[in-house]
Amino acid sequence: MRPTARQVAELANVSVATVSYVLSGRDRPVAAETRKRVLDAARQLGYTPNQAARSLRKRRTQRIGLVLSTLGGVPTDQRLATDLHEMADARGYSVVTLAVYNEARAKAAIDVLRGGIADGALINVVGDHLAHDLLAGLAATGLPMVVLSNDSGVEGCDVVRTPEVAASAEAVEHLLAGGRRRIAFMGHRHEVYRDRPTGRLLGYTTALERHGVAQRIVTAGADDRVTAYQTATDLLSSPERPEAIFAASDRAAISAIWAARDLGLSVPGDVAIVGVGNIDEGLITQPQLSTVGPLRHDYTDVVSLLFDRLQAEEPLPAREIVRSWTLIRRGSS
Amino acid sequence: MRPTARQVAELANVSVATVSYVLSGRDRPVAAETRKRVLDAARQLGYTPNQAARSLRKRRTQRIGLVLSTLGGVPTDQRLATDLHEMADARGYSVVTLAVYNEARAKAAIDVLRGGIADGALINVVGDHLAHDLLAGLAATGLPMVVLSNDSGVEGCDVVRTPEVAASAEAVEHLLAGGRRRIAFMGHRHEVYRDRPTGRLLGYTTALERHGVAQRIVTAGADDRVTAYQTATDLLSSPERPEAIFAASDRAAISAIWAARDLGLSVPGDVAIVGVGNIDEGLITQPQLSTVGPLRHDYTDVVSLLFDRLQAEEPLPAREIVRSWTLIRRGSS
Repeated sequence: MRPTARQVAELANVSVATVSYVLSGRDRPVAAETRKRVLDAARQLGYTPNQAARSLRKRRTQRIGLVLSTLGGVPTDQRLATDLHEMADARGYSVVTLAVYNEARAKAAIDVLRGGIADGALINVVGDHLAHDLLAGLAATGLPMVVLSNDSGVEGCDVVRTPEVAASAEAVEHLLAGGRRRIAFMGHRHEVYRDRPTGRLLGYTTALERHGVAQRIVTAGADDRVTAYQTATDLLSSPERPEAIFAASDRAAISAIWAARDLGLSVPGDVAIVGVGNIDEGLITQPQLSTVGPLRHDYTDVVSLLFDRLQAEEPLPAREIVRSWTLIRRGSS
Repeated sequence: MRPTARQVAELANVSVATVSYVLSGRDRPVAAETRKRVLDAARQLGYTPNQAARSLRKRRTQRIGLVLSTLGGVPTDQRLATDLHEMADARGYSVVTLAVYNEARAKAAIDVLRGGIADGALINVVGDHLAHDLLAGLAATGLPMVVLSNDSGVEGCDVVRTPEVAASAEAVEHLLAGGRRRIAFMGHRHEVYRDRPTGRLLGYTTALERHGVAQRIVTAGADDRVTAYQTATDLLSSPERPEAIFAASDRAAISAIWAARDLGLSVPGDVAIVGVGNIDEGLITQPQLSTVGPLRHDYTDVVSLLFDRLQAEEPLPAREIVRSWTLIRRGSS
């Protein structure tokens, strides 16, 4: 078993806080003699400053950093934030949220976290703004971190994945099984404007390829309701009207249902529509929205990963959660 | 002209930072002799610790605190956040967001700000969670603050008001002028569950009273789209169907349009609908949504108040902005 800060403190006959000041190198007045005693005790026990930083970071600010792509009302972000705030409340932590709208701000947010604004971070950043090396650099400082990401793992932190490729492929195969061939994909900008298809777009192309369907109809529009409505209206007014729309967000799919109805088209008769996310609002559309996503929106298991790290005496091994997504068939497909 | 920290520093022959450490009482090692020199210089120039705190708080963290009620996707919050982040970027500031879901968390957020997490704060909190005395106590610390609130002013900070009572009354009078008498109000929980009507509800009751209409139909439901849809469905299915719905948010009004259409009612023929906020989505409903709100969503003037305070050499007098709201008549009423 690795030595703890408490053992160093006991051996040096100082408080745990003093061990923290000395080993973290922070600018606090500690008498030279005391400093020497702490360093000697740490050496004797084989307690490294890096471990110390990790172990003592706990309870330094009593704050959690929540990193989101935007403050733009993405339903997943809202639910994640609610669960985090409730669990933080119960444990005496505050939450500070950092929004990462672009690459420059992603760098700035990482700097803020490196500066010690919080004792740990829960990071949900979609798209390309928060580059892997930024996250890896932050994790290397020993900051307890949980990252929601489908990209390659970051060493030293927990990773939460969603099976969006497989679930999206399942949604498209469900449309194919219903006899639809001309299937449009309405994606987020970060999905559509990439060199290679990833995520939900990759699920779409994979399913079509698997079933020998050559036609690809790929548009952006899933980022906001207005653009989605206009994009769906354009798609559904075209001479080669798609028989189905697979939208990368439920919000966009709901806009597509409205667009279809406003054009006098029947859903799913004229056009089948499937979304992603399983938000409650899918139950108040007529017809109700088919979707792929979690059956229940509960991020307490994700938030628990972070609190486990914060409360652990020793650094924990990296863990991975793959969230469970299901195709939920309702009236719109 | 009041003395500046720089003058104190020059007189005491120390750095401005040292003046800050000494006069803010923060726990930094400053030699007793130096401390005495700073205190003597401050006294000689009439420079008070309170002024010092104010003046030196600038550029301490290069961060702005944004305080919102929720991370729940309220369109106003989104736009305010976008403008703040952009202007902060341009000035080399980061933004940390604090969400205040309830009274306990409001207190915690104020503590976080008092703890010096940011150089200034932009605070938009609707409802009762963030009590006036909490805000006043924070302002008294000298933290540069801009508060968006229609409640009584907070001394020492800038206040931004919206004319929601008058605008809501105008919306209801517009419905009355169209011959509607049975007018329902669908409000936010914080508006509906109060002892006395305030804000949008007060506008509603004021207009009805002014025109001698006795019937009040007041429901909650404006806080989220699903509840709004269900509430509107209930209202419009009742034997005493309202001839109009005035919803305290555009999101709720849009749900009401959908509820009416799903019930086979015509808008505005069977029921007129007016919202609040003027969000873009009001342009993609059929019919388009009538609303009261700002013609343009631009918070740069609000954010500028805060940066003016941050950049001022001396404390600025409190200013007040009253935002301009207009009744925007479209097809739904």
